[in-house]
Amino acid sequence: MQQHLLYALVQNVPGVLSHISGMLASRGYNIRSLAVGETHQSDLSRMTVVVDGDDHVLEQVRKQLEKIVTVVKVVDISDEDYVERDLALIRVRANADMRVGVRDLVDIFRAKIVDVGQDSIMIELSGKEKKIEAFIELMRPDILELARSGRIAMTRGN
Amino acid sequence: MQQHLLYALVQNVPGVLSHISGMLASRGYNIRSLAVGETHQSDLSRMTVVVDGDDHVLEQVRKQLEKIVTVVKVVDISDEDYVERDLALIRVRANADMRVGVRDLVDIFRAKIVDVGQDSIMIELSGKEKKIEAFIELMRPDILELARSGRIAMTRGN
Repeated sequence: MQQHLLYALVQNVPGVLSHISGMLASRGYNIRSLAVGETHQSDLSRMTVVVDGDDHVLEQVRKQLEKIVTVVKVVDISDEDYVERDLALIRVRANADMRVGVRDLVDIFRAKIVDVGQDSIMIELSGKEKKIEAFIELMRPDILELARSGRIAMTRGN
Repeated sequence: MQQHLLYALVQNVPGVLSHISGMLASRGYNIRSLAVGETHQSDLSRMTVVVDGDDHVLEQVRKQLEKIVTVVKVVDISDEDYVERDLALIRVRANADMRVGVRDLVDIFRAKIVDVGQDSIMIELSGKEKKIEAFIELMRPDILELARSGRIAMTRGN
């Protein structure tokens, strides 16, 4: 089972997201991450989706998605040369004694501390998925809360 | 019409995303951004959704979403004290002459250049939505491609 990285340009209308996620689900694709945001064209959104699924079937799904009226195009960039980034907010347990250790790791990973509470610290980290996962592994025993954006990706300039 | 920022903890199973986005669409909520990623608990994903919609009805929708078996909880944090972050990859037109100007703006916004092509530059920028939108406004005439993660958010430590 291969992991696929797709992006779709879609019209900014209610329903288009459920249409796409519904079609992926009905074919048994598990959506590992999905990120949707506005583009510089006010009527279009861009959706980046990471799915686990069979190679051959995905090409059919891609074509079916493109038949949806509100979907402008769908591109599978898994085999292209692309830049990918992920973003995370992580709240970790940290009393006064533990803060120095957390700050060290934050510096090493070029992360940022964005909030400090009595017993916890909130950290912002962006980068490649592997970097984010390495940081999460190190912090895992102390993680209280974690929100990730899912990957966004773009092919390199030609 | 108010803008609402919700997050949902959901089980990692095919269909849960289309269920949620379908219910929001059927009530006429336009999803401005949506970001879904895995959490530190391997069976749970966290979804951050920004929707435009009526205050009163949203509370009903929130309750209905929580009735879905695969939805663990849904929280509207619009009125809480929270940290929010957004991530963007932006490809802008930039030949050799224009690169210095682009680099200046990149430095001012603490963005990063992540790829340089013959006629274009790819920039990574994370931060509050307002910062990202200010950068996009400045770059708008030269933007060739834009991918955003949509907002992720977390309430501050108590």
